[in-house]
Amino acid sequence: MTTQVIILNGGSSSGKSGIVRCLQAVLPDAWLAFGCDSFVDAMPAKMQSSDGGIVFAADGGVSVGADFRVLEAAWMEGIAAMARAGARVIIDDVFLGGAASQQRWQKALGEVAVLWVGVRCAGAVAAGREVARGDRTQGMAAAQADVVHEGVFYDLEVDTARTESLACARTIAARVS
Amino acid sequence: MTTQVIILNGGSSSGKSGIVRCLQAVLPDAWLAFGCDSFVDAMPAKMQSSDGGIVFAADGGVSVGADFRVLEAAWMEGIAAMARAGARVIIDDVFLGGAASQQRWQKALGEVAVLWVGVRCAGAVAAGREVARGDRTQGMAAAQADVVHEGVFYDLEVDTARTESLACARTIAARVS
Amino acid sequence: MTTQVIILNGGSSSGKSGIVRCLQAVLPDAWLAFGCDSFVDAMPAKMQSSDGGIVFAADGGVSVGADFRVLEAAWMEGIAAMARAGARVIIDDVFLGGAASQQRWQKALGEVAVLWVGVRCAGAVAAGREVARGDRTQGMAAAQADVVHEGVFYDLEVDTARTESLACARTIAARVS
Amino acid sequence: MTTQVIILNGGSSSGKSGIVRCLQAVLPDAWLAFGCDSFVDAMPAKMQSSDGGIVFAADGGVSVGADFRVLEAAWMEGIAAMARAGARVIIDDVFLGGAASQQRWQKALGEVAVLWVGVRCAGAVAAGREVARGDRTQGMAAAQADVVHEGVFYDLEVDTARTESLACARTIAARVS
Repeated sequence: MTTQVIILNGGSSSGKSGIVRCLQAVLPDAWLAFGCDSFVDAMPAKMQSSDGGIVFAADGGVSVGADFRVLEAAWMEGIAAMARAGARVIIDDVFLGGAASQQRWQKALGEVAVLWVGVRCAGAVAAGREVARGDRTQGMAAAQADVVHEGVFYDLEVDTARTESLACARTIAARVS
Repeated sequence: MTTQVIILNGGSSSGKSGIVRCLQAVLPDAWLAFGCDSFVDAMPAKMQSSDGGIVFAADGGVSVGADFRVLEAAWMEGIAAMARAGARVIIDDVFLGGAASQQRWQKALGEVAVLWVGVRCAGAVAAGREVARGDRTQGMAAAQADVVHEGVFYDLEVDTARTESLACARTIAARVS
Repeated sequence: MTTQVIILNGGSSSGKSGIVRCLQAVLPDAWLAFGCDSFVDAMPAKMQSSDGGIVFAADGGVSVGADFRVLEAAWMEGIAAMARAGARVIIDDVFLGGAASQQRWQKALGEVAVLWVGVRCAGAVAAGREVARGDRTQGMAAAQADVVHEGVFYDLEVDTARTESLACARTIAARVS
Repeated sequence: MTTQVIILNGGSSSGKSGIVRCLQAVLPDAWLAFGCDSFVDAMPAKMQSSDGGIVFAADGGVSVGADFRVLEAAWMEGIAAMARAGARVIIDDVFLGGAASQQRWQKALGEVAVLWVGVRCAGAVAAGREVARGDRTQGMAAAQADVVHEGVFYDLEVDTARTESLACARTIAARVS
């Protein structure tokens, strides 16, 4: 069964984006990449100052409201339709709701063949990389490092605190069928 | 019939992105915004150095190949699915193929209610704004200013050489049902 | 006397950056461009959450503290030294203090030949462009449109609400000696 | 003797920028950060398609011409003047000319107290990170990894292939007097 979608889940500053770009480079086919960052960019700016939207608190906390969930569900349906229409797609996401987040993707993707990848990075390491990036609210990395993996099942996991992005990507690519 | 999708078509540096952000601000609902730029960003970097992908020539010419068209068709199916799932979506695109480009969107969107908007900007003005942006290959604006509109029908047209982005957005918003 | 430095002063979203890039394109020599944005980028991120640094309020207000002023004075000395060492330099700045801001530049630049340019843009137009940019706090454009020009003298003024960036740049370039 | 300037030298994708942001976070004073990237950004875009400017070849090679050197010398004088005026400054650079590049900085900085830091990263690791960044010409990292250090002396060296950016920054900060 051909892998149609790769979903990477990990906390902020765990190194997902770097792995995505390496996957796009090493996989022989042309895979499209989408994720929670490009989804938030697609939303109106005013959704970031609305209780129904997505709120980034000063302490690194992130909360999303009902309006966000409605748009997210439609967006997931769209990603699933791209896959059914033949595109191969890589998604990087932050499962703020742990298992509940994974179930949302499962509901949208149905029978589409998915490779589930956990992107681990020790909270202290991710927090340091958050400082090095300079464009993220301090505290997100530590707050998300563990909770995003709660109750989530994976086909494989990688650890960016111990392994470079390109090597992680090669490990993942070897599992794509 | 509720407008589900707004499609803006215009050449490079004609001012589409500014209108999109203004539309997201003035429309009362939360509309998602996607477009040819975010689609190209979703593709592997290697597609930009491949004949089958998308090639940006030094003189401002842009050509796309068969691999690009396959991914684009799947992406359009995905956008249509988002709209059918209830999201309201703004697309900004450059119809390099004129009427043929519009037909690709029509095929994907089927019965979805679309508001077609032509974004005009005199070639000389767009070429000047291309210099002011500083991040685009010189020549794209002039090369695309007219050809992208050939054979395309619109519900309304706006002219950014004469009207500010926000005023264009208000004119468009007044036509959303 | 050879113009060594061009200083553009105008409120947020008045169109300074576009004029700078056009000036760099149309002026025959290679001019270096610096400004308040690149200066703020050079400061530690923590200066943006410190009373002594620079604070961007939610209503578009901007206030700077003593630590900011100390660094700014040294930065201005550095720009002046680049000009004395032979570089031709374009500066775009927002004179939050009006005439007092201009005097700070005069003190640093001393005998260096400066072309002073006022970049005007009606507050309502600049506020609309602020919406179109999408990455600026709403309210800065309107708040700054007039106050930054109070008590400031210019060699020439341009108005981006009426004139495209490239044409403004050509007008300015014609005054460079 | 108070350290007034920290100069980090290392090849492309060796991790200099991340260390700079961590240094700005961990150092108690407010240090300004400049470097070869912000200097190239300050130059006219046309300098990147001119033999006298800076040319980025498709194979990752970088060559600079006479016009670039003239502007660079003035820019270095300006940085030195900022330091003499009291600012503490962090520079990240790529010594394409090895020892000759270091001598240019020494000539400009004269008696200013400098902490020289070598940023090492094995070529193969840096090349992988170049893929993960996605915005750099492939080949720069490998081409520069070793040559930029030839004949250069350092007060200390850090290795980002083995040590996280924040830990490198703390090691450097401990040497600042």
